[in-house]
Amino acid sequence: MYRVKVYVTLRESVLDPQGNAVKNALHSMNFNEVEDVRIGKYMELAIGKTDRNVEEIVDEMCKKLLANPVIEDYRYEIEEVAVK
Amino acid sequence: MYRVKVYVTLRESVLDPQGNAVKNALHSMNFNEVEDVRIGKYMELAIGKTDRNVEEIVDEMCKKLLANPVIEDYRYEIEEVAVK
Repeated sequence: MYRVKVYVTLRESVLDPQGNAVKNALHSMNFNEVEDVRIGKYMELAIGKTDRNVEEIVDEMCKKLLANPVIEDYRYEIEEVAVK
Repeated sequence: MYRVKVYVTLRESVLDPQGNAVKNALHSMNFNEVEDVRIGKYMELAIGKTDRNVEEIVDEMCKKLLANPVIEDYRYEIEEVAVK
């Protein structure tokens, strides 16, 4: 079995209103040292036995569903784990 | 300056309907090897010079705003970077 961690972030050039809202909220709570906040997604997937290359599968899933390649970047870590 | 990465995940015992929806979507796209999906948040913060302990600040921000400690776990990585 494979444990996959996927990180999806907005591209540098894309505005992040949600991150701005969080930054403003932090400022209003007196965390004035916060200069920037960018919000992304983090996903943990469990993938079972497969004949295909896992990296290929994960990349295809990211491109087709998990991330929007037009405005988002993604990266992932794949770890093989022994089945309990 | 510090670059902080915060990962917020639902606790193991909490149901994740969003993750389930993504899993079902992946199955309908013939990614049948996917056994489980859990969705979390990933945040990148830039924190400027401060007299306080950065780890303390980040932990306080997570507890008060970035995560809901009742149903979510969080972890973070702090990296000191040279100011450009």
